[in-house]
Amino acid sequence: MHKQVSSPAESHAQTDRKIMIDLIQEFLTTDTASLAAVGVSFGGPVNPIRGLVHLSHHVPGWDNFPLQKWLQKHLNAPVALDNDANAAALGEHRFGAGRHCKDMMYITVSTGVGGGLILNNQLWRGSDYMAGEIGHTVVDLNGPLCLCGKRGCVERFASGPYIAERARKWLMEQPDRGRILRELVHHDLKMVNAQMVAQAAEEGDDLAWESLEIAAHAIGIGIGNAANMINPERFVLGGGVTKSGKRFWKKIDDTAHQTALPGIHFEIVPAKLGDDSPLLGAVALAEDLINSEISDTSE
Amino acid sequence: MHKQVSSPAESHAQTDRKIMIDLIQEFLTTDTASLAAVGVSFGGPVNPIRGLVHLSHHVPGWDNFPLQKWLQKHLNAPVALDNDANAAALGEHRFGAGRHCKDMMYITVSTGVGGGLILNNQLWRGSDYMAGEIGHTVVDLNGPLCLCGKRGCVERFASGPYIAERARKWLMEQPDRGRILRELVHHDLKMVNAQMVAQAAEEGDDLAWESLEIAAHAIGIGIGNAANMINPERFVLGGGVTKSGKRFWKKIDDTAHQTALPGIHFEIVPAKLGDDSPLLGAVALAEDLINSEISDTSE
Repeated sequence: MHKQVSSPAESHAQTDRKIMIDLIQEFLTTDTASLAAVGVSFGGPVNPIRGLVHLSHHVPGWDNFPLQKWLQKHLNAPVALDNDANAAALGEHRFGAGRHCKDMMYITVSTGVGGGLILNNQLWRGSDYMAGEIGHTVVDLNGPLCLCGKRGCVERFASGPYIAERARKWLMEQPDRGRILRELVHHDLKMVNAQMVAQAAEEGDDLAWESLEIAAHAIGIGIGNAANMINPERFVLGGGVTKSGKRFWKKIDDTAHQTALPGIHFEIVPAKLGDDSPLLGAVALAEDLINSEISDTSE
Repeated sequence: MHKQVSSPAESHAQTDRKIMIDLIQEFLTTDTASLAAVGVSFGGPVNPIRGLVHLSHHVPGWDNFPLQKWLQKHLNAPVALDNDANAAALGEHRFGAGRHCKDMMYITVSTGVGGGLILNNQLWRGSDYMAGEIGHTVVDLNGPLCLCGKRGCVERFASGPYIAERARKWLMEQPDRGRILRELVHHDLKMVNAQMVAQAAEEGDDLAWESLEIAAHAIGIGIGNAANMINPERFVLGGGVTKSGKRFWKKIDDTAHQTALPGIHFEIVPAKLGDDSPLLGAVALAEDLINSEISDTSE
């Protein structure tokens, strides 16, 4: 069974928590099975060990909320949580493009650029549970200013909004170029988004391709840097921007392999679970809880 | 007991291997103790699991040599080996600035820039045993060309030879600057090395400081990137270039913390074992062999 409820516009943490509980109660009345465990993928920084949400960048009221304890009290079942990038890494590793892969990095390129690491078949979270933040690694120390305050982050070149912004700027500066992209948005430059840029590039628009190419180059360098630093065997790429076509993928792959030292081997593959990678990661978190309980009682 | 023998100029792998064996035989005849285990820190890429040396960049004849098996046969004792950066990380973790630290990265800045990772109290080697290569991560995609063929690697800005080269170039281009550095080398620009640059900077030479500052900035970004990607609790810095004074360290520390995302915490400390970190890492490798044998026989 599968059900999705969106958080309302201008929601508050309390409202969202009520939605969570109601949703689960509904399952429990319609399904004969009882609740063995709950896994949560949260869209913001968390402390998975203490079961704490640090904050949400979108919804107020989450600051330092003990979500794990709170859910356990209301649902009378064990609960595990992690941030959505880590959950997505876990989901792809358990059920998707990272199966049978001991060490991998999951990277999502969408409105932001994030990631999660699996080392030795386990999530590598880091000492502040912040590992995997490839989007804010710097690849161009003199580059353009990123929202985070630094210059030349991978995200500053590669996220969807920045791909669109760059194309829009060039369309304004270069009136003779970008005919295909202009027609796609009916000459309303406000309508330019990363998906349109990708479509125009596929149809042969040079300006559109150049904006995408800059994104692919930055992602490729970020991956090559991660390969030099961590040396995993596979990179799994998800998120809307990664649906930008073969030429985009080839540019990422070529750049990443040029950036990695000789002797470092890896493959870059698309995510298999689409938008569901974080949710299936939450399933994996719940599975692990159940398995650890079984091994606890059998000891 | 401690003894050091240098490899002769234009040596060959066979010569070096004979030196190794002779050295150990000498210990065995002068010391009453028998040989329990041997640890090797090798200056080049190795496969520590198969006990293979891949190659040496300095001495011919090492290509794919099974050093572990060969030493075991000649010494009749268990042997473990790793590359020098990994061994140094292990040495600092076990005996130096990384003690009681679960996750750390060791970085050496010398004629090259390399590193090794300890995650969960163990060496993280990566799937090709190449993890930790922070020196060839790119921080300036439009930067100057590195020996490795890429642009803007950390090493290209931060290694001793490049610090010296940059200062030398500026001294030639800017005849009115760098008085202190010029006097230190008695106006013979060929004599400029990274140590002289550091000394001149300490004595107030602006040109010298600017060359060092570029190195510190690149190292700081490399560390900040590693913190975002891996999130270890400590960075331990060794190698000659890291002896370049307080201002150099402050620049590294400030840049690294500016590069890391809010919520990511770490400290940057100097290595404690100096040039001996790789050797003490070899001791740690041997210790681990002995301990694993004890646990094998007690099972």
